[in-house]
Amino acid sequence: MSQVRNNIERVKEILAHSVERAKPLLKKLHPSDLAQILEEISPESRMLLFRMLPVDTASDALSEMDEDARPEELLMSISPQRAAKIIEELDPDDAADLLAQLPRSDLRLIMDRLGDDEERVIEELMTYDEESAGGLMNPEVLSISADWTKRQAMEEVIRISEEMEDFYAIYVVDDENHLLGVVPLKGLIRARPQAIIGDLIVDKLIKVAVDIDQEEVAQTMLKYNLAAIPVIDAENHLLGRITFDDVMDVLQEES
Amino acid sequence: MSQVRNNIERVKEILAHSVERAKPLLKKLHPSDLAQILEEISPESRMLLFRMLPVDTASDALSEMDEDARPEELLMSISPQRAAKIIEELDPDDAADLLAQLPRSDLRLIMDRLGDDEERVIEELMTYDEESAGGLMNPEVLSISADWTKRQAMEEVIRISEEMEDFYAIYVVDDENHLLGVVPLKGLIRARPQAIIGDLIVDKLIKVAVDIDQEEVAQTMLKYNLAAIPVIDAENHLLGRITFDDVMDVLQEES
Repeated sequence: MSQVRNNIERVKEILAHSVERAKPLLKKLHPSDLAQILEEISPESRMLLFRMLPVDTASDALSEMDEDARPEELLMSISPQRAAKIIEELDPDDAADLLAQLPRSDLRLIMDRLGDDEERVIEELMTYDEESAGGLMNPEVLSISADWTKRQAMEEVIRISEEMEDFYAIYVVDDENHLLGVVPLKGLIRARPQAIIGDLIVDKLIKVAVDIDQEEVAQTMLKYNLAAIPVIDAENHLLGRITFDDVMDVLQEES
Repeated sequence: MSQVRNNIERVKEILAHSVERAKPLLKKLHPSDLAQILEEISPESRMLLFRMLPVDTASDALSEMDEDARPEELLMSISPQRAAKIIEELDPDDAADLLAQLPRSDLRLIMDRLGDDEERVIEELMTYDEESAGGLMNPEVLSISADWTKRQAMEEVIRISEEMEDFYAIYVVDDENHLLGVVPLKGLIRARPQAIIGDLIVDKLIKVAVDIDQEEVAQTMLKYNLAAIPVIDAENHLLGRITFDDVMDVLQEES
């Protein structure tokens, strides 16, 4: 740990002299360390540094910044074109949280530059109360049909894993996206190639309604030791999933 | 959620009349719900119920009980033979925490009935400070050699997954069990069958020393959004891993 702290201090020192000279060092940092540096340096260096970062690095760092450090101000300090590119790299739930902090005019300028799908998903997420399950959830889920074989499911897992940073469970749905159950990734890996997904569903499905409070989500995941929990609407349609890291932040905030 | 609450209330009501009559209902419960019932019923019903449970169910429920509910008293209320069987079903870190609460004489009676390997692992875990990384870690890890192929690694994943409840990352070690890096399960799934494990290691390895405080473990996992973190000794030997659920409990306790 002290080695990480030393690295961060060294980068901060170099940044104080020249943002340009720090460039090669930044590549080696974890996005969470980069976020910490952005939080701790002067506002001027912060904006200079943020402009210099590649889009994907800027996006990773932004999503890790504490909201007290006002990451939305960094978005407003760059062109709407670049801001839109950074937003598209974020998880939709992080994007919605960040955009909700912007003045309406800045928000519009960025939203108009997003792809149609991206804009629609983010606008929908912004309708949920920030402190509800809907406000925490990521609508990008790994969902498959109950009548698929393991082989088909694995192909989908491999396809989706190019886009999704992480997944902990595979949600099984019917033709109308009703949530039928969960298959742990472990269960899928261990199954025979011809196994039918519906037969791999584990019983005791734990899920939460989209409108419940985030504190109840956290307590449910804590009680049942879940890395991820599915979120449903009143008709049991699968809307998204919440992961342990969102919930650790909630537990931390409430303390 | 309210449906879960109703189920729990219904089972509690039946238990108050007859522990025997509740038997078929108990099978449908999640271990965390069963733990909650054990915490909430009278001490007499609790002991009756606990004696009636199959060993694996008793073990699951015990590991989910709050330590304020004194689960160790349930262990002392049954024969040392049965207690040893229940302990062997527990994760070693949970077993060590529970056994540490027992009077020395009861502890010895149970320890003498454990398998040699189990006894050695638990005794070693009991030497760590309960509030350190060593006190939180589970020594059962999924570790593989850097020079294996994906195919060999998948065989080991399938083998280990029979024993381990959950894993989130695969640790890569050398011949002397020095930690070389981490391969996410996702990365392994996506690799070609002939891929070499060493080439799949992700950079930016985050790990913790066995003697650091549990609060620092929690803050590190929170900062880097980790579902699991490896624990090492001063010579970088892999000793175990800590998962997000242990750390959520820490965050909860500190609040």
